[in-house]
Amino acid sequence: MSRFFSYRYETLVPYTPGEQPKIMNVTKLNTNENPFPPSEKALRFAREHIRPLNLYPEIQCIDVRERLAELHGIDADNIVLGNGSDELLNFAFMAFCDDRKQVAFPNISYGFYPVYADLNHIPALEIPLRKDFSIAPEDYYDLGRTVFIANPNAPTGMALTRAQVEGIVKRNRDSVVVVDEAYVDFGGESCIPLIRDYENLLVIQTFSKSRSLAGGRLGFAAGDKALIADMNTIKYSVNPYNINSMTLALGLGVLLDEETTRANCFTIMENRAYTADALEKLGFTVLPSASNFLFARSDKIGGGELYRSLKARGVLIRHFDRDGIRDWNRITVGTREQMDILLKNIRELLEETP
Amino acid sequence: MSRFFSYRYETLVPYTPGEQPKIMNVTKLNTNENPFPPSEKALRFAREHIRPLNLYPEIQCIDVRERLAELHGIDADNIVLGNGSDELLNFAFMAFCDDRKQVAFPNISYGFYPVYADLNHIPALEIPLRKDFSIAPEDYYDLGRTVFIANPNAPTGMALTRAQVEGIVKRNRDSVVVVDEAYVDFGGESCIPLIRDYENLLVIQTFSKSRSLAGGRLGFAAGDKALIADMNTIKYSVNPYNINSMTLALGLGVLLDEETTRANCFTIMENRAYTADALEKLGFTVLPSASNFLFARSDKIGGGELYRSLKARGVLIRHFDRDGIRDWNRITVGTREQMDILLKNIRELLEETP
Repeated sequence: MSRFFSYRYETLVPYTPGEQPKIMNVTKLNTNENPFPPSEKALRFAREHIRPLNLYPEIQCIDVRERLAELHGIDADNIVLGNGSDELLNFAFMAFCDDRKQVAFPNISYGFYPVYADLNHIPALEIPLRKDFSIAPEDYYDLGRTVFIANPNAPTGMALTRAQVEGIVKRNRDSVVVVDEAYVDFGGESCIPLIRDYENLLVIQTFSKSRSLAGGRLGFAAGDKALIADMNTIKYSVNPYNINSMTLALGLGVLLDEETTRANCFTIMENRAYTADALEKLGFTVLPSASNFLFARSDKIGGGELYRSLKARGVLIRHFDRDGIRDWNRITVGTREQMDILLKNIRELLEETP
Repeated sequence: MSRFFSYRYETLVPYTPGEQPKIMNVTKLNTNENPFPPSEKALRFAREHIRPLNLYPEIQCIDVRERLAELHGIDADNIVLGNGSDELLNFAFMAFCDDRKQVAFPNISYGFYPVYADLNHIPALEIPLRKDFSIAPEDYYDLGRTVFIANPNAPTGMALTRAQVEGIVKRNRDSVVVVDEAYVDFGGESCIPLIRDYENLLVIQTFSKSRSLAGGRLGFAAGDKALIADMNTIKYSVNPYNINSMTLALGLGVLLDEETTRANCFTIMENRAYTADALEKLGFTVLPSASNFLFARSDKIGGGELYRSLKARGVLIRHFDRDGIRDWNRITVGTREQMDILLKNIRELLEETP
């Protein structure tokens, strides 16, 4: 820290992202990326429709917003785009939380929520998960706080039904409920259809998972037009040209090839069932996942040890060294080939373990 | 505004970007873009070196930082990249200003500085320009405030020498001086060589102007390693994956073709001299510009009227409807052909004016 750093942030602990190795000869199952690249159809569309790069991007992002609106049966004015969904989560913390309207979110959930609360000096109520790692909707009723819920939750992968989320939204009429649906396309129920009925519901999705664009940085938020207007007040005061022209063109290309997105999600869900089954046969406890990852633990080998041993063998998974989940690992569901490499290495490790 | 919007931001007035028309049959001289696209060489490099888009970007941005370090004779640890230089300006407001260490910047300068001050609740001292629109360095001595200076300044285009900026840096040893060099490659003197000598100097540049990448969104800040570490604390708490993989690949491609950048800047400077000369012959007052735009006024036609009349003829320039510069227009320097279209239309308008 320099002697010039603002006292406002001197205790801030930044988010720790998963490792992003430069060398590619690893089986990378640690950051919940999609194993399949964007389709050739999407890439070709992007190449043919990109705005000249010497010009600023189209600031309204209208083409992508209109296509999203069409897909979800809402209006373009119900949508704002972000440089990844992280940016939109931060905008939502800024717009809808402060020292008067504080925030609540699950403990355990996406590790960025407490960082955004700290960053924006918002007192946070962290609500523990149930013993089975589920979120109990009634724990979020009548809080008088802005609520952030990841659905499916991370790193557990477990989902609430749309009706359960709606229950939370109904019981917080005077607070915004932000539903972070990063993983919803792998078996969850999106709450976007509810935004017409609830002025206090904001749904955030990303192109990083089901849409194979983690490298492109694109997310969107959907909600009542007044909420979106507030998000735009923040966006236009922080970074109006937040989405570059390449990402806009490719994002639209991906949205015009929903067939590939659906097919990839289906394959990943098949591989998830295959892997969960194999892990259970190896004695693992595996939580029911509606996402593109599995949260699993073994009685025979600790979470930290499994992480390190697999890493030494060129297989990267995620381990969170924190209370409550120290025995667990989060494993991204990749291709069938990647899953077989993972399982083969786990089998060998278990055989070596006394 | 929704009823949920935080009181913290309820009086915030967002930045107003220049118009970005979707239809391309206009002569667009309003947002200081480079008229030349990135080179084929840069584009080819990007296509051949892009990281798979289904993976998250390389989070350290090390290749671009190392190339920038090589070009400027500094270390990669002296550099942080942003999603455009606007993001880095906001990070610098966050990192180095607060209610105790307040901020100072010129009035008139880049219109985003007051927005960032408001956004971050930082009291701002706005220091008027001299009558000739120049920044007087001594006005910034011993302020006890973080100083933001655009050099060359916008929308005037006028530059301080490196020695003049150094004077400001020397006389504010206990405050950070941020030098916004968006336009420096068109005839200004960069202060990057000074960062080795001053722990309180942060220089911010962009790829949007000289490097033809406004559509790619890339900027960088250079400074003492401790300052850069502070900027990274903010970055990793706001949006760690702030630069997408396409922009990283293309940014590196552009940096590997400095010859094209220099040639384009040279052409733009030639066109600037040509246009300034022609405008003066038409009776305009034109400020001395070290940037890729001209700030000019006519006694015969008001700034607002010239803007509107040219717009009706398909030529977009920028007009700022604010005290002190209402009679003026900011005109981006484009290709020779664009300049001739501008001049032809101005000539016709002046002939129509009684």
